Amino acid sequence: MTPLARALLSPRRIALVGASADPSRLTARVQIHLRRHGFDGEILPINPRAETILGERAYPSLDDAPGPIDHAFILLGAERVEEAVVACARRQVPVAMILSDGFAESGAEGAARQERLLVAARAGGVRLLGPNCIGLINVPARTALSVNAVLAMEPPLPAGRTALISHSGSLIGAILSRGAARGLGYSVLAATGNEADLGAADLLAMLAEDDGTDVIALFLETIRDPGGLRAAAACAFDAGKAVIAYKLGRSASGAAMAVSHTGAVAGADAAVDALLAASGIARLDSFEALIEAAPLFASARPLATPRRAISVVTTTGGAAALVVDRLGLAGIAAAEVRDMTLAGTQPDRIAEALGAALADQRSDAAVAVIGSSAQFRPEDSVAGVLRAASGGAGKPVAAFLAPDAPESARRLAAAGIACFRTPEAAADALRARILWRVPTAAVEVGDVAEAARVLVAADGPVLDEWQARAVFAALGVPDGGAELVSSPDTIDAVAHRLGFPLALKAVSSVLPHKTESGAVALDLEDAEALRTAIRAMRARLSGVPVRGFLLAPMQRGVGEALVGFRRDPQAGAVVVLGAGGVLAELMPPPAIAPAPLSPGQAQTLVEAAPLAHLRGARGRDRGDLAALAETVAAVSRIAALPEVMEAEINPLLVRREGEGVAMLDALVVRRWPAAEETSS
Amino acid sequence: MTPLARALLSPRRIALVGASADPSRLTARVQIHLRRHGFDGEILPINPRAETILGERAYPSLDDAPGPIDHAFILLGAERVEEAVVACARRQVPVAMILSDGFAESGAEGAARQERLLVAARAGGVRLLGPNCIGLINVPARTALSVNAVLAMEPPLPAGRTALISHSGSLIGAILSRGAARGLGYSVLAATGNEADLGAADLLAMLAEDDGTDVIALFLETIRDPGGLRAAAACAFDAGKAVIAYKLGRSASGAAMAVSHTGAVAGADAAVDALLAASGIARLDSFEALIEAAPLFASARPLATPRRAISVVTTTGGAAALVVDRLGLAGIAAAEVRDMTLAGTQPDRIAEALGAALADQRSDAAVAVIGSSAQFRPEDSVAGVLRAASGGAGKPVAAFLAPDAPESARRLAAAGIACFRTPEAAADALRARILWRVPTAAVEVGDVAEAARVLVAADGPVLDEWQARAVFAALGVPDGGAELVSSPDTIDAVAHRLGFPLALKAVSSVLPHKTESGAVALDLEDAEALRTAIRAMRARLSGVPVRGFLLAPMQRGVGEALVGFRRDPQAGAVVVLGAGGVLAELMPPPAIAPAPLSPGQAQTLVEAAPLAHLRGARGRDRGDLAALAETVAAVSRIAALPEVMEAEINPLLVRREGEGVAMLDALVVRRWPAAEETSS
Repeated sequence: MTPLARALLSPRRIALVGASADPSRLTARVQIHLRRHGFDGEILPINPRAETILGERAYPSLDDAPGPIDHAFILLGAERVEEAVVACARRQVPVAMILSDGFAESGAEGAARQERLLVAARAGGVRLLGPNCIGLINVPARTALSVNAVLAMEPPLPAGRTALISHSGSLIGAILSRGAARGLGYSVLAATGNEADLGAADLLAMLAEDDGTDVIALFLETIRDPGGLRAAAACAFDAGKAVIAYKLGRSASGAAMAVSHTGAVAGADAAVDALLAASGIARLDSFEALIEAAPLFASARPLATPRRAISVVTTTGGAAALVVDRLGLAGIAAAEVRDMTLAGTQPDRIAEALGAALADQRSDAAVAVIGSSAQFRPEDSVAGVLRAASGGAGKPVAAFLAPDAPESARRLAAAGIACFRTPEAAADALRARILWRVPTAAVEVGDVAEAARVLVAADGPVLDEWQARAVFAALGVPDGGAELVSSPDTIDAVAHRLGFPLALKAVSSVLPHKTESGAVALDLEDAEALRTAIRAMRARLSGVPVRGFLLAPMQRGVGEALVGFRRDPQAGAVVVLGAGGVLAELMPPPAIAPAPLSPGQAQTLVEAAPLAHLRGARGRDRGDLAALAETVAAVSRIAALPEVMEAEINPLLVRREGEGVAMLDALVVRRWPAAEETSS
Repeated sequence: MTPLARALLSPRRIALVGASADPSRLTARVQIHLRRHGFDGEILPINPRAETILGERAYPSLDDAPGPIDHAFILLGAERVEEAVVACARRQVPVAMILSDGFAESGAEGAARQERLLVAARAGGVRLLGPNCIGLINVPARTALSVNAVLAMEPPLPAGRTALISHSGSLIGAILSRGAARGLGYSVLAATGNEADLGAADLLAMLAEDDGTDVIALFLETIRDPGGLRAAAACAFDAGKAVIAYKLGRSASGAAMAVSHTGAVAGADAAVDALLAASGIARLDSFEALIEAAPLFASARPLATPRRAISVVTTTGGAAALVVDRLGLAGIAAAEVRDMTLAGTQPDRIAEALGAALADQRSDAAVAVIGSSAQFRPEDSVAGVLRAASGGAGKPVAAFLAPDAPESARRLAAAGIACFRTPEAAADALRARILWRVPTAAVEVGDVAEAARVLVAADGPVLDEWQARAVFAALGVPDGGAELVSSPDTIDAVAHRLGFPLALKAVSSVLPHKTESGAVALDLEDAEALRTAIRAMRARLSGVPVRGFLLAPMQRGVGEALVGFRRDPQAGAVVVLGAGGVLAELMPPPAIAPAPLSPGQAQTLVEAAPLAHLRGARGRDRGDLAALAETVAAVSRIAALPEVMEAEINPLLVRREGEGVAMLDALVVRRWPAAEETSS
């Protein structure tokens, strides 16, 4: 663990800046909580108007407090926080948490205040957690350094080997309280507040090195640092720890998907899903699963080759069906359901059946579903499960209790067996565990200098089609033999060289919807038709700046795809792949993955994408999916050009197997003005 | 209440046939449960080897038991049940419940045994509940007539005004136990077992007349009598009671959707969804919502014009977001979220804010989300909610408690306020409440005699295309001007009359995939092309029985639809509507509704169907959706022909607005041999 992590998570000398002597006040709570839950290090209350606070010696200012200070919790109002951070810098306090709100979460003025605060902290070498941060709790270190109301609970706090990092402070209380009710405890619970400086990714990196933690649970409201999160998750994975997450914002996808350009064709939530999966973070879909799933992931690694199947042993058929039906929706089958209703709940019989389920090669996990005995005879009902699990050869085991049976739940938790209150959480956690993947490797893009040169040569935020095609071609996308004609004199010669029938398009950076603007003519059969089409197009586009005309041979293929790229505000650079052309809006939304992609990762994306029309069903030809994957990988390399915000080939024509692909239209949008600072 | 319902649900003199004197045995449990939970009527244990059983006078046989018997619970093994039912008939016992398994659920032999049992019961005038039925519980009548292990709980059982009908006996225990833990009680809880005679629909009809019941909750594993269920649900609705349901089998839809004919293009679960919605039954998607949602539906009617929005008052922003995000996935927005974190949990402030939320015209329901105060100060935390709800003007109110807070949950339950343990159940129940609809009226089909005549004239299980077209035409579907040519001599004359270009198809009942068999030729431009096509087709189809050739003018339109009909094993007669032709497999699955449909109902189905390609997006023409709706209604009338099992028009060509529709291909499959008994 780094000195910073130790100062943040396990401080021994804590300054409470703005501590109150009035126990009814929020600013007195931290000190009360620390002592109530057994903190045995030093507390330095800072308050100019009190000699002692809650029985401990107080100091008028940080400067007056003796000795080194590991960690300051600043409890002052927003307008006095910056001054306190400067004082921390003077005293060389390495890290400060800030309780107050009134910063970036509260509008422009607050955002400016937060920016000033960050500048002061950086200048003084003080790292910050917050502002708007309720504090953190280190259970094994008995450090309840938080104003969280849940700390009114009776000591001791429930200890365990699961850490929690949460954007929401109050949900830390909800999670701790719900965990306690079923015998599940925590190591460290940290709220991140506004993440002005340290954020969820930083805390994840710190906890990756915490010996007291096996599983790190994330409650995320947003993602501010996708690259940092992915890197930290990789560290945690390498350290043998599992990361699980609940992420708000699923429903925003519905709204985003209504907008019909790449920026939103694949919803924001799908991009987050893709980032988390690529990071080796198991995403949970139900709130309680974030609490209950932890034992399924403790000291665990992803399954090498998931069979997408579970084995079930149950004393109640109806309740087992609840879990099985739900798992079926996620594409996970029941390899076997062994109903023990007649054998009853004799521990020997349960242990034997569950042992057989654990040995069953057809399934990834075993689930015990316990009926009324869990309510009335907790000891008996779980004894068989405990016995079987103790010899379980590493296969995940979970229990679902049909009745209200808190005592049985606690017994299972004490033995490290995942126990679920609802069939939905059980199925959700099993799905997440079975489909959990090893983090995908970061990809080296290689040389994109040629594409960068093309980009620099262009002008304005939206490249015209010819420039966009040149960027993609420089990355390795086949261009389909199009030529740009800027002088009327050469057009016949170019047309003759390409051969009829031809497609004709006006090239302009101000015509995003070329078809609707009458800037496209297809299937031109001869020179006469071409001349007529150009004449008509010129008339329709009078006044529009047209750089020239693009001529291309009419192309035939199996069908069309859309290959897109964008920088998602939360997930960062992503590639999307779906049906192209007129099908783009009719077929299911595209598949999505963090960019750049290796050829193998691109192949995986092609397999996952909604491309039924290219897979050769119903006597149709099969498209060249290998060439499509190569193109997806090529497009994904655009991520290495930080000023490209969005790019798309739609349609990309996919020919028959072995015949390749060709871009029929292309779009590149970049940050503008280009001089602005850029980042990937 | 009918005499049968009284005998079944509120018996005063109960025979326990096969009662055991050994309290450790299952067959002794009923008597123990009845007395333990305060039954004060008469129990008549029937056992030839005991004079008294558990302190009550026993009788060697039913014939020996004195006086009238309201209800017999038969606890004997499977092979002795029929004899006991015959004895019930002799004693004029109106209704018998049967505990034993070993009937239809256990294979062919059991099914035959169940069939014999039913014959005996009908002959003797005895109605049955079961076999494989764990029994029923009438809480207000203190009649715990069940072997359910949950009855080991301490008396009194939690009483309430929600009834439960369940295909699963053991889940009755789980539901009663979970309800009790949060202060929610029940009126009647009945397991239906195998439904050999009385089933869920019959019990629903009985409970529709129960003065002690406001809400009827169904736990369904299947639906055996869709028509009966719909009729009973309508009775319940008319009696002012709400029906809510959890139905297993969602995941079967995934498998069914892989099969590419109407029988499964729309999944089995979608059909069930449609049946329940049309029946005015609010379907819940999460198990605990079936328990927790009841107060939201007590004495309630569906919203007349849902705004699809809620108002939220919260003491914890993070927890409110859990519910809001989840509701967003169901298309329900948050009209307002009022975060009271600073105001704290003062009851006055909560009451005021929640009162404003209840008065907010933009929302359908108000939700209170309570944080840590629910855990530590239950009285305070719920006081504001109770106060606001008591003056709430009928708008639904729900509460979600973020921490583990059973005491607050019980206080809310006692006041009749729906309280949810998980954000998922809260969102699920609110969605179900907001989208709950009045049952749709049953539709009179009118005269289908002409279609029936056409059907009778055809031969075999699969009608050929010409016959199928005739059936649909008789129901009122425009046929697109096709003609059948059975003699080569007349073909030129017919072609001339119709006008080129023409489509040509071989008509045969043994060619389900005409295109793949080479039995279709399109765009024939003249008589020569027609002759060539017929010659080639004859050569390809040599040996195939061909009735003649169908000629039709080539048709142009905006796009194609699929209109289908089938008898679903669970949902009964349904109509499906989706994209047709090559898009059928690429676009989302069809919309679905119980058949027949009124014109208005057909219009609603058209609005819900995945027909983006016909709605005039992106400069395309808009299709004649009014004519499409008329055709959907016409197709739905085929439900009145009981021998039709499946029927489909695909493609149905949809022309521009005002220009109508035309069937391009048609299929009708009927029960065969037709002489078999048929039913709708």
